[in-house]
Amino acid sequence: MAHRPIITLTTDFGLSDHFVGTVKGVILSILPDAELVDISHSVGAFDVLDGALTIASSYFYFPAGTVHLVVVDPGVGTVRRPIVSTTEQHHFVAPDNGVLSYIYNREERIRVHHVTAEHYFLQPISQTFHARDIFARIAAYLAKGVAPATFGEEVKDFVRLEVPRPTVVNENTWRGAIIKVDRFGNLITNFTPDIVPSLFQSEPLPFKIRVGGREITALQNAYGNTPPGTLFGILGSMGYLEIAANQASASKILDVEKGARVEVVLEAMPSVCPS
Amino acid sequence: MAHRPIITLTTDFGLSDHFVGTVKGVILSILPDAELVDISHSVGAFDVLDGALTIASSYFYFPAGTVHLVVVDPGVGTVRRPIVSTTEQHHFVAPDNGVLSYIYNREERIRVHHVTAEHYFLQPISQTFHARDIFARIAAYLAKGVAPATFGEEVKDFVRLEVPRPTVVNENTWRGAIIKVDRFGNLITNFTPDIVPSLFQSEPLPFKIRVGGREITALQNAYGNTPPGTLFGILGSMGYLEIAANQASASKILDVEKGARVEVVLEAMPSVCPS
Amino acid sequence: MAHRPIITLTTDFGLSDHFVGTVKGVILSILPDAELVDISHSVGAFDVLDGALTIASSYFYFPAGTVHLVVVDPGVGTVRRPIVSTTEQHHFVAPDNGVLSYIYNREERIRVHHVTAEHYFLQPISQTFHARDIFARIAAYLAKGVAPATFGEEVKDFVRLEVPRPTVVNENTWRGAIIKVDRFGNLITNFTPDIVPSLFQSEPLPFKIRVGGREITALQNAYGNTPPGTLFGILGSMGYLEIAANQASASKILDVEKGARVEVVLEAMPSVCPS
Repeated sequence: MAHRPIITLTTDFGLSDHFVGTVKGVILSILPDAELVDISHSVGAFDVLDGALTIASSYFYFPAGTVHLVVVDPGVGTVRRPIVSTTEQHHFVAPDNGVLSYIYNREERIRVHHVTAEHYFLQPISQTFHARDIFARIAAYLAKGVAPATFGEEVKDFVRLEVPRPTVVNENTWRGAIIKVDRFGNLITNFTPDIVPSLFQSEPLPFKIRVGGREITALQNAYGNTPPGTLFGILGSMGYLEIAANQASASKILDVEKGARVEVVLEAMPSVCPS
Repeated sequence: MAHRPIITLTTDFGLSDHFVGTVKGVILSILPDAELVDISHSVGAFDVLDGALTIASSYFYFPAGTVHLVVVDPGVGTVRRPIVSTTEQHHFVAPDNGVLSYIYNREERIRVHHVTAEHYFLQPISQTFHARDIFARIAAYLAKGVAPATFGEEVKDFVRLEVPRPTVVNENTWRGAIIKVDRFGNLITNFTPDIVPSLFQSEPLPFKIRVGGREITALQNAYGNTPPGTLFGILGSMGYLEIAANQASASKILDVEKGARVEVVLEAMPSVCPS
Repeated sequence: MAHRPIITLTTDFGLSDHFVGTVKGVILSILPDAELVDISHSVGAFDVLDGALTIASSYFYFPAGTVHLVVVDPGVGTVRRPIVSTTEQHHFVAPDNGVLSYIYNREERIRVHHVTAEHYFLQPISQTFHARDIFARIAAYLAKGVAPATFGEEVKDFVRLEVPRPTVVNENTWRGAIIKVDRFGNLITNFTPDIVPSLFQSEPLPFKIRVGGREITALQNAYGNTPPGTLFGILGSMGYLEIAANQASASKILDVEKGARVEVVLEAMPSVCPS
């Protein structure tokens, strides 16, 4: 039954330097049989919320007991705390700067420990690479079976950033934003089905999605259902409304980047049937 | 004797999103001891033939029994079929869109099964991420020992794309194309030694390779045999004629990209010796 | 006690081709239980010293017994030798072109063997991909326990490149260079604390760091201690003085790339106290 302990890595370190390899070396020195899995190292540099979205899109698919190392850490070397956050199924090791905010929103039971047990750290600790000197080592010891409470006191005042959600403009209009552009140029919005349920019903009422100066009036249920280059909305695999184009980049077609505004307008409200 | 089951991954997902990590999480949830190896995730977006060439250049070097997950899938969510293709040594899990065409050309015995056994899929199935919801799970169960026939009926009408081959222009001229530009800027043509054998013999007759408005008249047997920047032809590690330059990018020097035309002209035909 | 043998990979192959995956396939065919760890595949193309710096920044953090495959090999196919270099704790497999120079400088005891035992190579050997045909196989056999001397004779005349070090301009001025720009745009200089110790003491005397036409007069002990965008010096995790900016790219701010000149000027010399 005992399989190799799994540790995932999500960082903004990129792949052009030795950083990721070095972190893995530190882990393997403590736990040589760890299975190491990269989620992504291309989180936007210093972009804590982008890191938060990345790990939140992926952690759920890993087996119970997985340790997730999440390091987007512009405050490295300052007073921000290293933490271990534990849900019913998973452990997360990260700086306490909000990089686990989407996790906190999705998980009901979570306990957070402030890591202070310095004898687990690499000595001497550098000023600039705590992923190597602190986080990698804590992740390895966690995966080895050391209990979170061993590393420090439980805290309740951990940092939870407000994640951007669409706002109501008026009774039939919502305003949201592009929170990510993926590799294919698909524009991931922050609209989830619960915000505008009628948009996602099997026969939606007429609607407009306004983005990049264009109006999109169709949803599709597959990228390949339209002629190449056609723009449409689609419920994406991360659970958000995406703006996409068949075999083309919606981002390029619309000249739209992360942060752009998106409006959803319902053309007609569901009317109450006259009796 | 029993080693960890190996699963390779070849996709056009890039490394900037959570996609690859998530696929690995799904596999490890079924088969926690899998050895996961990335071939490349930088296949050109939606470029089925580029994916076909990538896996065909690599699969042969893996041990017998390896499962190769190959997902370049512009038709995700449409009627294109998920398949398992099995050769004497390897398994391939892919959409049935031609992404295994080079494999089909190289392997003599191959059996293809249409994957229809939905109880192996992740539920609910998304519209846009079948690598996660279908292909990863089939790959994991295959690597775990489930037989291909378990997933669905054998089919004979699987998609085999025509791969681009050089054509004969006249008795001493052939016209081919650049099918790939590698990281170093080497231009991989679709000329193999069997097409113009005399080009690759130890003392070739005079020839010209026309590409990018230039004529190349020398082959080398190492990149480093000429002064830096000199253009030459070389038989590359993928088995194709490459146009290269020592410590420089032939692609930049010639301003030539994938798809460009290449002509090979033999200056003199082998003459019959007068008796 | 016996854990899986670890093999790291450092190359200039990039991640857009099949190269790295193929090398891993060759290793796993010999040693299916190897743990394969990428250090980086984004070493500058043909940049031997960049590869040397990358592996030197990382190898030390891996467990004793690790085999490090280091392939930046512009001379592939020419007479440059394949070698195995062994320190007290680690093995390195590389072309003998200086790519291990920083390792040689840091390790006291090192033995180098010229690899000539061709029956360990893949046959036929290609002209252009010795990472696949030679280095991967030697690394796998080493990790499997084959002794370095088995592969060929010990040599003493291995290639050791001179690594760039700061020079003394006058009694209070040193001239060095940017040897690397990392993912965040931090500029890694070749100044180590031993060159200008007074710069790194807890209360340094006044100094100027001249780079990119600007003068920097402050060191920090964390990236996040200054307002975003402020330039400063910091002792980085690789042991070198870095020029950095909080949550911004020093490289962009200064328009400075690898190779640029850096001068350190001490404003006042420590004076002898008058008695």
